[in-house]
Amino acid sequence: MIDAKHIQHFKNIVGEENIYSDKAHLLAYSYDATREHFEPDAVVFPKDEEDVSEILKYCNEHHIVIVPRGAGSGFTGGALPSKGGIVLAMEKHMNKILEIDMKNMVAIVQPGVINMDLQKKVEEVGLFYPPDPASQDYSTIGGNVSENAGGMRAAKYGITKDYVMATRAVLPSGDVIKAGKRTIKDVAGYNISGILIASEGTLAVLTEITLKLIPKPKMTKTAMGIFPTVNDAMEAVYNTMASGVTPVAMEFLDNLTIRAVEETFHKGLPVDAGALLVTDVDGNMEDDLDFQLAQIEKVFRENGCSDFKVAKDEKEAADIWFARRNASPSLSIYGSKKLNEDVTVPRSALPELLEKFYAIAKKYNVKIPCFGHTGDGNVHTNVMVDGSDPEQVKIAYKAIEEVFQATVDLGGTLSGEHGIGLAKAPYMKMAFTDAEMELFKSIKKAFDPNNILNPSKMGLD
Amino acid sequence: MIDAKHIQHFKNIVGEENIYSDKAHLLAYSYDATREHFEPDAVVFPKDEEDVSEILKYCNEHHIVIVPRGAGSGFTGGALPSKGGIVLAMEKHMNKILEIDMKNMVAIVQPGVINMDLQKKVEEVGLFYPPDPASQDYSTIGGNVSENAGGMRAAKYGITKDYVMATRAVLPSGDVIKAGKRTIKDVAGYNISGILIASEGTLAVLTEITLKLIPKPKMTKTAMGIFPTVNDAMEAVYNTMASGVTPVAMEFLDNLTIRAVEETFHKGLPVDAGALLVTDVDGNMEDDLDFQLAQIEKVFRENGCSDFKVAKDEKEAADIWFARRNASPSLSIYGSKKLNEDVTVPRSALPELLEKFYAIAKKYNVKIPCFGHTGDGNVHTNVMVDGSDPEQVKIAYKAIEEVFQATVDLGGTLSGEHGIGLAKAPYMKMAFTDAEMELFKSIKKAFDPNNILNPSKMGLD
Repeated sequence: MIDAKHIQHFKNIVGEENIYSDKAHLLAYSYDATREHFEPDAVVFPKDEEDVSEILKYCNEHHIVIVPRGAGSGFTGGALPSKGGIVLAMEKHMNKILEIDMKNMVAIVQPGVINMDLQKKVEEVGLFYPPDPASQDYSTIGGNVSENAGGMRAAKYGITKDYVMATRAVLPSGDVIKAGKRTIKDVAGYNISGILIASEGTLAVLTEITLKLIPKPKMTKTAMGIFPTVNDAMEAVYNTMASGVTPVAMEFLDNLTIRAVEETFHKGLPVDAGALLVTDVDGNMEDDLDFQLAQIEKVFRENGCSDFKVAKDEKEAADIWFARRNASPSLSIYGSKKLNEDVTVPRSALPELLEKFYAIAKKYNVKIPCFGHTGDGNVHTNVMVDGSDPEQVKIAYKAIEEVFQATVDLGGTLSGEHGIGLAKAPYMKMAFTDAEMELFKSIKKAFDPNNILNPSKMGLD
Repeated sequence: MIDAKHIQHFKNIVGEENIYSDKAHLLAYSYDATREHFEPDAVVFPKDEEDVSEILKYCNEHHIVIVPRGAGSGFTGGALPSKGGIVLAMEKHMNKILEIDMKNMVAIVQPGVINMDLQKKVEEVGLFYPPDPASQDYSTIGGNVSENAGGMRAAKYGITKDYVMATRAVLPSGDVIKAGKRTIKDVAGYNISGILIASEGTLAVLTEITLKLIPKPKMTKTAMGIFPTVNDAMEAVYNTMASGVTPVAMEFLDNLTIRAVEETFHKGLPVDAGALLVTDVDGNMEDDLDFQLAQIEKVFRENGCSDFKVAKDEKEAADIWFARRNASPSLSIYGSKKLNEDVTVPRSALPELLEKFYAIAKKYNVKIPCFGHTGDGNVHTNVMVDGSDPEQVKIAYKAIEEVFQATVDLGGTLSGEHGIGLAKAPYMKMAFTDAEMELFKSIKKAFDPNNILNPSKMGLD
């Protein structure tokens, strides 16, 4: 697809040192967190927006595929060059926090900035960037925006889209567009930033992102409750939130997950409990936090909570969070291969969803331990099988298909946080009508008529 | 454009009683809050989504223009049938609150529901729908979403777009699309709800909207501060927010506005003050509110506030709010014709913006009193002239053009709340590049290839 003439042209734009086409580098940029791999024809590191513009214009004229890439930590293949072409890697140059604007409480960043670096930087000046995907230590803001990353704090603070105020982006034509402002209110023109969020790099290449910041809450406290059943735990969650207390995090582990953590780490967890809830509250006043925790304890106990514990200090808080943070690796006791999904349903449907999952598990004779975010109905669903047995792996994929169907049937979404990419593309028709898919394709065409930007993603072709 | 055959077809869909084409009704539906008027060919009241679908499909086949309409209270002509066609009026049938879902904390409403009706209904069960445009007593949720309405509480609680979780809408083809879910997290497919927000009825017709609700804060307190200059007042606002206190409202009146209210109502306002700030704080605990107010007073006094008053009860709070609520009508002392705009700049630029406005006022020898939302940089800018003098009116429009230019130069937007519609369409080129306008047109075409939905709005044709 790409020949020496094209490579030379890209070298002229970015400089000799900012393009790789040797085997080792092509391999390095062929992976993401899905473990699928596809080699690009070249990896290009744009120095700035002007480079991005020149590259896109050229690729558009020559119908060369472009795959924008942040850290390559996505779970659905969004950054994989499945059709070859060039990987446009933002990590080397376009990785700067350009400004932290205190008066307007916004940060202006390039797409390659790592989420945690931004969080730390703004917290130094008393501000707060809440979206905290599990990948926060290495994933980039460009990737977070492109997949609309969530995290633990979503129930109280929302997700990436709730913080994107403005974007600069380059269209396939090479034209630079600016969408949105450093203002909460802006209703002039179509909401282009709104459609770029979660568009997985298929519409335009982000070059600058303006993020809303909020004041950093001055303190956080942690508590844990043990419940006989998931239903009881979820009733406690609904009633806590309806009572006016919105916890920052309200995480659950189901029985299978509790058992796995206990078997692996021997922390004295209640292996017969139906569910364990871990919750954080935050605020600016000790009294307020204590008020919230007292309210949570009251509601928890009214809903069958047998044991409620508030962490007295940071060490106890870390102990409480240990089970949740180590849930994922513990699950390997159930099998060497894990198909993990991030399906999400309205939180009212969470007990019924888990019942359906356990029925699916029974039907296929596999284990499906679940944990995740009760506040927003986002369930980390893990179909565990023996990876060395091809028959088992086939069964696991069948189970996953039923997991998706159960989710959609309950008004849920294929993905709460990870996006569609390649991995979930085959299931798009389960979730969207023909008319909806056609609309997606029309929008794609409006931005990218030659389909050069991250083609074959999201089930669009 | 529409003949008897078309009218008969619409009658067959909605029933004889749900279509008007007599002169009186056409006149009644020719207006909105802009005082411009254009008569439609017919006014049709769909009973349900199926009606909307059939009407759109037919109109698309016959290239008949459709203008969706809520309360017709918009300030920019978004609901005016400037190209004739049929007005699709949602107020008669599609005006129901379909569900208030406590567990997921969402409301499902039809587009014709009045904002205040929804607010009251959800507050009855302890929940809260924050967006509160000044038109809240009569404007509809469909209109609020289509213009992305703001309000007083935006700095703390955001605007309409921050509460839209999902939409159902009908495309010109008649196809019904569902976008989003009753979930905070949903990253499957393009963010169609995101682009429908603020699209002014040009892309699809909304038939159902799912709105996020939050717990209702249990109490509110009001305070007022008087400042020698707008600069001092704005420094106080920045420092208050940076200190970790986010007031629900932080409204300002400039000197000309203070004088107008005082001259009209004789409330003992300080007519020599440069600015007056009115602020509300809310929360669940008396202590927390007092903490916030103490912090605000401290920061206000550090920034030149000469007089700070906390309302002791509801009556005193209403007294404090009186000046702000009566600002707009009071301005008539400066002229019978008011050109009012809702320009918005990053709040850091607000002092400079007002300086520019006063220079424009001086240049054209007109008065430009300003008031509005300091927390989000949204300024109600009023160019006041003698409406009976055509020369003065011409001058006012010249001044407005410079108002827009000054706003755009300071990184601001033509509209923070009201939208573009017809009224601001001529200024779109001031704010957007050719490439951006072309992108808007491509998106419009992707949704509405025959341009039947609210044509001629937003400067798109």
